[in-house]
Amino acid sequence: MSKKTGTQSFILPSEPKIVSSASFVGPKEGEGPLGDLFDTVYKDDTIGLESWEQAESRMLESAVRLALRKIGKDPMDIDFFMGGDLLSQIIAAGFAARELKSPFIGIYGACSTMAESLITTAMLTDGGFSRIAVCGASSHFSSSEREFRYPLEMGTQSPPTAQRTVTGAGAVTVAAADAELDQAFEMIRITGGTIGRVCDYGVTDAGNMGAAMAPAAASTICAHLKENKLEPEYYDRIITGDLGSFGSEMLYELCKGKGYDLSRNHLDCGKMLFSREQKVICGGSGCGCCATVLSSAILPALENGEIERVLFVATGALLSPLSSLQGESIPSIAHAAVIERRVV
Amino acid sequence: MSKKTGTQSFILPSEPKIVSSASFVGPKEGEGPLGDLFDTVYKDDTIGLESWEQAESRMLESAVRLALRKIGKDPMDIDFFMGGDLLSQIIAAGFAARELKSPFIGIYGACSTMAESLITTAMLTDGGFSRIAVCGASSHFSSSEREFRYPLEMGTQSPPTAQRTVTGAGAVTVAAADAELDQAFEMIRITGGTIGRVCDYGVTDAGNMGAAMAPAAASTICAHLKENKLEPEYYDRIITGDLGSFGSEMLYELCKGKGYDLSRNHLDCGKMLFSREQKVICGGSGCGCCATVLSSAILPALENGEIERVLFVATGALLSPLSSLQGESIPSIAHAAVIERRVV
Repeated sequence: MSKKTGTQSFILPSEPKIVSSASFVGPKEGEGPLGDLFDTVYKDDTIGLESWEQAESRMLESAVRLALRKIGKDPMDIDFFMGGDLLSQIIAAGFAARELKSPFIGIYGACSTMAESLITTAMLTDGGFSRIAVCGASSHFSSSEREFRYPLEMGTQSPPTAQRTVTGAGAVTVAAADAELDQAFEMIRITGGTIGRVCDYGVTDAGNMGAAMAPAAASTICAHLKENKLEPEYYDRIITGDLGSFGSEMLYELCKGKGYDLSRNHLDCGKMLFSREQKVICGGSGCGCCATVLSSAILPALENGEIERVLFVATGALLSPLSSLQGESIPSIAHAAVIERRVV
Repeated sequence: MSKKTGTQSFILPSEPKIVSSASFVGPKEGEGPLGDLFDTVYKDDTIGLESWEQAESRMLESAVRLALRKIGKDPMDIDFFMGGDLLSQIIAAGFAARELKSPFIGIYGACSTMAESLITTAMLTDGGFSRIAVCGASSHFSSSEREFRYPLEMGTQSPPTAQRTVTGAGAVTVAAADAELDQAFEMIRITGGTIGRVCDYGVTDAGNMGAAMAPAAASTICAHLKENKLEPEYYDRIITGDLGSFGSEMLYELCKGKGYDLSRNHLDCGKMLFSREQKVICGGSGCGCCATVLSSAILPALENGEIERVLFVATGALLSPLSSLQGESIPSIAHAAVIERRVV
């Protein structure tokens, strides 16, 4: 009774429910086009704590707590929290899990974390190992810049392909199809997904993540469509995590080469989150980018019936500061979740 | 049809099979009491590559390939590779996954990684999402020392509670109970497990990981025994990952306080891997410690009938170099897998 539709793809026969979500962002994200949709917009990116890392961890913890509060639950009611972030040794998620006290499954997929946690949690739910679980991911502009690039105090200029790491955290509650719950969302189901393979086209420029990650997005999207015998139009929207404007163009070219035209129904969270006037160059990035856009914009649009069927594809660049210094190129991965509106 | 036996614990009704394993270690590990059991002992801890990080990644990749070769398979035949390591942004596993080209689920549980990947893979297999998958974890003394402590060139003296990070990688192949395969192991099943919660007793000394991790081991072991209404003697062996001699004593004290005496059937991989004469102070540590001991010693002992039922509990310290510099204490987590011999 395999649930696989191909080497990488699977269906979820029980169709686990997405019952709530929450998003917390920093000030610049709040000024963007989605500003009104986030649950909380902080005025200060330290949120009053002693370090950006603490602030990031607190935002993730808060997102998990709020997602649960929306359905009348708290962290002690869940089977597990599954999440991750970009910091060395995943400390935003690890420290958040310490405060939450729920069972914790730590993952690392760089900016693909939100999709990785969604599909893994959905599979565990479908398999009978969870009734309620929360998926979450976070990133922070200031903690990421010093982790991956330069101390902000240096005032280093960004290259024309740079993206801005999103300060924000998103959390999504996944429940078994037959769990009886108060639900913030009544209509949303996860019905399948595709596990990514690591791709590497030899890009070594950590200032051009879109180019490093586009091949992974193309690989996973094309594998998903091929294994499930679908055309891109089957989905109302195919939404990538944080390819930005440069990476999105590359994605179209790569998919066109494999016979798929994504240009008509593709959106990218990195392009949705900031406006051109905000001068973030190629758009947003970071685990928190698609986590907050999913939580605040995509899921409500599904619930309201504005869209019916989404392929949510988050891409991650699996580099480290050390691997770049050692001259390694940037391997990337993308995972995909099928999220659908079901009229009960 | 929940498979949960408590908030943290679950059973695996289909009893996924462990069909093979492989272990690759460095020279010092090869000189220890388990030296003859490893598949490969390298004479040089760079294994001829340009950096210790590359060496670690290559060892993990090699362990996955060999575990699969033992059952006549290669990385293109599997549903996914799930693994992780200790390095910043999990580059040993990420780069190994790039070479393997199989679908990849990256996880982070510090030294609990091997148990986390085993139980998560076993749940996904039981749920119908995998026929064959490989779990793996690695660590490297020299890459870890410079990541977490001091450059080796400084010759810093270790404190009396220190443990030595194991240079090694282990990989375990998990298959669906009804998968028809050539098997290196015929008798071994994963029958249940317990997902850990993050514990933090306020230890801030990164030179005393045993003390930081013992509370997590105690928490998970006691939750497992309580939720399943078992006594420690139900298991032939309760085997922790890398508490070392100091952490093991703490574990006994903490469990005694909750009414469980572990002193009679507990073993610790960190104490098994090195002898006293090797002067590693409190024993081995690192993701590769329990990964290599499981692959080389524990699984063969189950297959041969020397032991019949094991609770395999790996503990991880969820710190980062930055969190320690910022004055944070060391949160820890432990995950447990029930591994049993079944006479067919």
